[in-house]
Formats: sequence, structure tokens, C-alpha cells
Amino acid sequence: MQITSEQRLDDGVLERRFTLGDIPGILWIPGSASAPAPLILLGHPGGLHKMYPRLVARARRSAAEGYAAATIELPGSGDRPRSAAAEEARADLRRVLEAGEPVSDEIVDRLVLPLVEKAVPEWRTVLDALLSLPEIGGPVGFAGGVIAIAVRLAVVEPRISAALLFAGTFVPRSMVEEARQVTLPLQVLLQWDDEGNDRHMALDLFDAFGSKEKTLHANMGGHTGVPEFEGDDGNRFFARHLK
Amino acid sequence: MQITSEQRLDDGVLERRFTLGDIPGILWIPGSASAPAPLILLGHPGGLHKMYPRLVARARRSAAEGYAAATIELPGSGDRPRSAAAEEARADLRRVLEAGEPVSDEIVDRLVLPLVEKAVPEWRTVLDALLSLPEIGGPVGFAGGVIAIAVRLAVVEPRISAALLFAGTFVPRSMVEEARQVTLPLQVLLQWDDEGNDRHMALDLFDAFGSKEKTLHANMGGHTGVPEFEGDDGNRFFARHLK
Repeated sequence: MQITSEQRLDDGVLERRFTLGDIPGILWIPGSASAPAPLILLGHPGGLHKMYPRLVARARRSAAEGYAAATIELPGSGDRPRSAAAEEARADLRRVLEAGEPVSDEIVDRLVLPLVEKAVPEWRTVLDALLSLPEIGGPVGFAGGVIAIAVRLAVVEPRISAALLFAGTFVPRSMVEEARQVTLPLQVLLQWDDEGNDRHMALDLFDAFGSKEKTLHANMGGHTGVPEFEGDDGNRFFARHLK
Repeated sequence: MQITSEQRLDDGVLERRFTLGDIPGILWIPGSASAPAPLILLGHPGGLHKMYPRLVARARRSAAEGYAAATIELPGSGDRPRSAAAEEARADLRRVLEAGEPVSDEIVDRLVLPLVEKAVPEWRTVLDALLSLPEIGGPVGFAGGVIAIAVRLAVVEPRISAALLFAGTFVPRSMVEEARQVTLPLQVLLQWDDEGNDRHMALDLFDAFGSKEKTLHANMGGHTGVPEFEGDDGNRFFARHLK
């Protein structure tokens, strides 16, 4: 893990930018931390630079509760090399959405499954590196981002103890089956009127999760309309499971 | 309003049993109240005596946050006179459930609609009396109980500012249409595996509510398995809207 820059934010949070191999990422460490802090991995839809304002806000909120937080760029997003197949799938999706046509399973699979295959091992490698740092310890949570990545991580990564999912991105149909293998505590956010999200698919996915403790929070409005109070609810969810 | 008994609970809450006409009820006033307290009306499925332990627990939780709480017996429940039609509908429901048959709309209508017709004016009369007490003031919330009663109250009673609903009892199909007229902030609890509750109907009802702010909290388990943390979530919902 190469540290590329480090700065202290005004609320005392230490923001450390890093690369691990060719993966860029950011780690935030609470200013108040005396013992190793539990860690929340922050998912996002790709494009670290564009997402930074929202990510740092989420990291500060986590830090205020004593958690470190970390995120990495997704494969094929931001400054990372594009994949021709992924670009083609995105272009096909854009065409279909602009034409007002339904998004086929085939496009969703082409768009999401290769991303899951690449992103999940990267998250795991980054987790190895983060957990070896003296500032980080204790349980790990995962929050937000591409829900299919979170589902696969929840299945394969035993070091993740709880996940806060956002039913706001396309889900390959095969992931609904895969979700049955998930057993960790979940809180799932669903924006009821999310134009880019199939509500029934999201409810089927919620139903499929094998977790004994899973909670769905559905709110009105579109993709970016998640109410402010859900941030606090997310912190309370992690407080129940990571502390 | 006739006070029939009054006692101070160990946490300082004043519990006052009353009758209004032939309606028995209970009012709980926070021990710490100096100013008139906002009020939460506690719904329940009927049978005040049997429901008392759960009701007093909910009232204490509300009192700890500074709310007065009140409940009344439902028409035809507890010590109140039975209605022959309601008893017949209950017997028909029991037969259908024991036979493992689906519950028809006709039975649900016979069971619930007359109850709504009787209970809602009673709640409103009791609310008149409660709001005339010096200990009670400020906004009013409604929590739990027969969801069809809560829907009708939310439509007709402008003094109710927010409602916490429990999608755990039968809903006449006509109430889904009626729900479109509801505009107050709602939080709806749904037990995902509630054997006595039609999940799709509950989701349709949630979808129908006209409220701009409505949140669905779905959790695993059956009717009585609502997780402990939903009590705190309910308090926070009311804190956002009644304070």
C-alpha cells in the first residue's frame, strides 16, 4: 500500500490517499481514535473523483461514531483503464434507456457480472492491507455502492460482519440465487420511485437473502433522494453489529 | 371523562384509567412533564386487559421521550358488548384459517369495515377529551393497532400529525383507495413472514399512501417478532414530526 497523500480534515479526521498495485483508494481515520478502529468499507457506483464529496461526507459521519472508513476506485472507472466489453455494455444500456425500452437481463449481466468478478477480489486485497494497519482493527462493515458487488462480498468474505446495501443499481438475475447464501446482518435501502431501479427485483432480492436479521428501509423519491435520517439509521445499524 | 383509578408507576409515569361514556381507556402522563406533553395514541388489536403489558411498555418508552400516551378499548373487545355481526365474522375467519383456506375479501370487509366505522368516531371523541386536559398539548401521533382504523383516522382527523402503522392486520381492499388520501408523514412496519398478513397487500397499501414522507421498515419474522430496535426507530420518527 503506497500512501500518495495525507491531510488532516477540519474535524480531525485523517484522510490518506493510497494506491495498492493499480487500485487507487482513500482511507479516513477518526481523529479521536486511540485504539484500533472498526472499519466501514464505502461502496459507490464508480468515479472516485466525482463521488468524493459524498464519500467524504459519509466517512466523516462514520468517523464521528469511531469508525475508520475506506473506499477504492472501481475497475474501469475514474482514471483506471477502461475495458472494451464494459464500455460496450454501458453504451448498450444508454441506448436502451434513451429509447425508453426495458433493460434486458442480457445487458445487465454483461454490465454487472464482469465488474463483480473484478471488483470483489480487489476489495479483498485492499481489506488485507487495511487490516494490517495499526490504526484499523475489529469488525468490518460494508456500505452502499453496486449492490451486486456487496452481495458477492457478503458471500465470500467472512471478515465482513454486517452490510448496509442500497438497492439502487442493476442486479443480475443470478445474484438473487446467490443472495440466499448471505447470512450476515443486513439493512437494505430502497428508494421507492427510483427510475433506474426495478422495485420488484429489489423486493425479490431482499426476500432471497438468507440472513436471519435483515431490515428493509424503503423511502419515497428517486435514486439520490435518500432522506438525511437514513444516515443516522445506518450508523445505528452498524453500532448494533460492529461494536 | 371519568377517572376510575390513578397510580404512579415506578418510573414516575402517572397511569390514569378512565371511561368516556362506555369506552374504557388508559392515559399515561410522563412524570417529568412540566409543560403540556405531546400525545401518542396507542392502537392495539383489541382486548385492553390482555394487551396491557405491551401497551404499558410502549407508554413508558414514549413517556421517557416526553410524550403522554393513551389507548382505548376497541368496540366489541374486552369487557365491551359484543356485536353479533362482528362475532359471526370472527367465527367465519377462524373457520377459514383453520381450514387453511384463503381469507376472502368479503370476510375481511365484514370483519374490519364495521370496526373502522365504530372505532374512528370513538377515537376522535376521546381525542377531544384528552386535548382538553391541562397535561396534554401539542401535536398528536398515532401508533400501531388495526391498520384500517389508523388509515381512516389519518384521513379524517386533522389533529393527528404523524402515524406509525403496523401492517399486521387485515386490510379491506377499499382501504387501499382510501390510503391515497393520506398525506401525513408515515412510518410503516411490516413483518416479512407474518403468517396472518398478506405481504403483497401491505406493499400495495404502502405504495398507495399519498404522503410525501413515508418510510417502510420491513423486518424478518412473524407478527410478534418486531425487533426491539424498532421501538427506538419509532421514537425517532415521532421526534422528527411531533417536536
